[in-house]
Amino acid sequence: MNIYDIIEKKKNSLELTKEEIDFVVEGYTKNIIPDYQMSALLMAICIRGLNIDETYNLTNAMLHSGDTIDLSKIDGIKVDKHSTGGVGDTTSLVLGPLVAACGVPFAKMSGRGLGHTGGTLDKLESIPGMNINLSIDEFIKNTNGIKMAITGQTGDVTPADKKIYALRDTTATVNNPSLISSSIMSKKIAVGADALILDVKVGSGAFMKDVESAEELSKMMVELGHKFGRRTVALITNMDEPLGFAVGNSLEVIEAIDTLKGEGPEDLTELCLVLGSKLLVLGKIASSEKEARELLEEKIKNKEALNKFKEFVKLQGGDTSYVDDTSKFKLSSIKEEVYSLEEGYVQKIDALGIGEASKDLGAGRETKDSILDLGAGIILNKKIDDFVKKGDLLATIYTEKESEIEKVKKMIQNSYIIGEKNEEPYKLIIEEID
Amino acid sequence: MNIYDIIEKKKNSLELTKEEIDFVVEGYTKNIIPDYQMSALLMAICIRGLNIDETYNLTNAMLHSGDTIDLSKIDGIKVDKHSTGGVGDTTSLVLGPLVAACGVPFAKMSGRGLGHTGGTLDKLESIPGMNINLSIDEFIKNTNGIKMAITGQTGDVTPADKKIYALRDTTATVNNPSLISSSIMSKKIAVGADALILDVKVGSGAFMKDVESAEELSKMMVELGHKFGRRTVALITNMDEPLGFAVGNSLEVIEAIDTLKGEGPEDLTELCLVLGSKLLVLGKIASSEKEARELLEEKIKNKEALNKFKEFVKLQGGDTSYVDDTSKFKLSSIKEEVYSLEEGYVQKIDALGIGEASKDLGAGRETKDSILDLGAGIILNKKIDDFVKKGDLLATIYTEKESEIEKVKKMIQNSYIIGEKNEEPYKLIIEEID
Repeated sequence: MNIYDIIEKKKNSLELTKEEIDFVVEGYTKNIIPDYQMSALLMAICIRGLNIDETYNLTNAMLHSGDTIDLSKIDGIKVDKHSTGGVGDTTSLVLGPLVAACGVPFAKMSGRGLGHTGGTLDKLESIPGMNINLSIDEFIKNTNGIKMAITGQTGDVTPADKKIYALRDTTATVNNPSLISSSIMSKKIAVGADALILDVKVGSGAFMKDVESAEELSKMMVELGHKFGRRTVALITNMDEPLGFAVGNSLEVIEAIDTLKGEGPEDLTELCLVLGSKLLVLGKIASSEKEARELLEEKIKNKEALNKFKEFVKLQGGDTSYVDDTSKFKLSSIKEEVYSLEEGYVQKIDALGIGEASKDLGAGRETKDSILDLGAGIILNKKIDDFVKKGDLLATIYTEKESEIEKVKKMIQNSYIIGEKNEEPYKLIIEEID
Repeated sequence: MNIYDIIEKKKNSLELTKEEIDFVVEGYTKNIIPDYQMSALLMAICIRGLNIDETYNLTNAMLHSGDTIDLSKIDGIKVDKHSTGGVGDTTSLVLGPLVAACGVPFAKMSGRGLGHTGGTLDKLESIPGMNINLSIDEFIKNTNGIKMAITGQTGDVTPADKKIYALRDTTATVNNPSLISSSIMSKKIAVGADALILDVKVGSGAFMKDVESAEELSKMMVELGHKFGRRTVALITNMDEPLGFAVGNSLEVIEAIDTLKGEGPEDLTELCLVLGSKLLVLGKIASSEKEARELLEEKIKNKEALNKFKEFVKLQGGDTSYVDDTSKFKLSSIKEEVYSLEEGYVQKIDALGIGEASKDLGAGRETKDSILDLGAGIILNKKIDDFVKKGDLLATIYTEKESEIEKVKKMIQNSYIIGEKNEEPYKLIIEEID
């Protein structure tokens, strides 16, 4: 077997065998296959595609390229959630305590943000003292104890995916459903949850720009999940505007806490209730989504979800007084308001533009090594279907970077598409794939 | 402009601009664009294709990546010939003296063989003393003096092509008509002849396996030639059997000398006469191919072509006594005969199999650094449409590698496809494209 023939096969649209895919993944991870051959193969895959069997074999090869985490010592049906990355998406910090409060073990390995999308670990670090580097034993012990733990990836999980992803990122070979699916699912299967809910964002701020490609990706990931014996559901959700009002690390944590108090934005609350209902059914705590939703609403009302979040913060070393009093979060020192230049209805808020603006304010990373300003970000004041007049407040920005302010104001104004009222109401949840 | 966006464009089947192609070729040649991005782009090009404008721009960018040779000091219409590489193809050594004897300046920069195809430079080195590394001044002076010179490439001609070709060779991105055309034509335009004849081989021993792809390649090369203002003609010729009887360096030189004496194989003689007739018309020595052919046949009969070859050998330092007495060529010490295992008509002789067999005997290079045995090779005794009986002599092999003999005998026997008589007579020259 040799890599030249494998590249040639895929160039000619032929199906690769399990042995060939194993050979490629192992050879590349061990630096036997050089970057320039791998990138040629990745481009051939991008254009010619992989079928479901090839995608499964690729996922499996990446899964076995490194450590896998055995969560069998956690009692019950462990659930996990993955979002393909949006703007202002602080769902995990609401969803985790909500389902944990209902008795479903929420064991999540999370990541940091890059570019215009945020990362759960960065957000959690807004709370002083939070330890987001748990050992596997702590991770298991915490989940058994309070039904919830969130940590950065421990061990050497899917090193093949890390190496392949870095190459895809520089060779315009990111955007292929099989490559995206295998990257996400190999990591998710490696960290071992029994049930998985996938939040596939669609829209300008998301990876998938249209519903069709989001559907293709969702179907592939759900099928892969099933092939690995995991209960898997995907929701295609709308990123035609950022989720909630807050974009930025501390700002999003405050919003998550508000949501757990029952005082959060309508869209974020709704998404968490829908995702949570599905997780409760997958986790066999409820027999129907309707029953599950009632249970979740009750956990907000009776503060059990909020208390679960405090319990979680405390167990991972964080200062719970921040949860009780969110005014303790230190925001960036410069606060500026952004006003509308137009009059009309908000038709759309370009989430990519808002995400980039937030990044430029200091809330996101330009490169892996960028240092974040956890207090920076944007609070939106108007959302889709709101009516605005010239001079109305669109958003408030927080930053330490005075030089960025004027540019960012324009970026935010440009992100607001204002005109006639939309004919159709905004649909947050577009479709469910299971 | 950045390489990522250029790769993305081609992946999405969009046309690249001249500026983008210049950026790629210059960036890659100067090591600014790394191999792994270039190979991803090459794969996208292989699958998505380049149109004629993109191919012209690529050819032009490669042409200007290094030195170009100014042959304007050579009097008359300089002609050049390029073969896409066959087995037993010693045409240049016959064609050069033939057209030079008619007064057409034949100024050829040639290459070495690799794999199963031979190289003119290696063949010439069979003649003791031959200098195949002329300076540009010598090359011009010799062509002006005796109308003929053959040398290895001098100067740094198309370094971009060299670097890109080496990458294509390891990433399964060789086989695309635009990439092949631009590679060949950039070199041919750079070395400056006014008129060019392209011998595009088709068949198992050739680069192009079928007539359709040979046509596509030929049309593209001829169109490129015209765009660069060069008279260009392509002939698609058959490689369903090796050309002539001899395969191997000294053996082919002997066969070329025999052909110049009027005692060569019919197919080699015919191909040289057809190619030569076209060059005489392109070089304005004859007004029709019929007139040209008569002139060429006369030059063989009256020994002027043979004498031109001797003049050429002498001027480049070679020992002309080898031309007078070809028994002086030192062949390999082991001589073995290969017999037929079957009875019937020769339907086809797999040229790739014969080329590989010859390489294994020591006549060809496995890698760039392999050392050749110039005396090794194969003399075929039977050709297409010949009748053979079991035990009849198929071929004679020459080698120093005793351990290869049994394997090579089988390779040769397997290369002979023997059965019913072919319904159609063998067609050496399939099509002309101009």
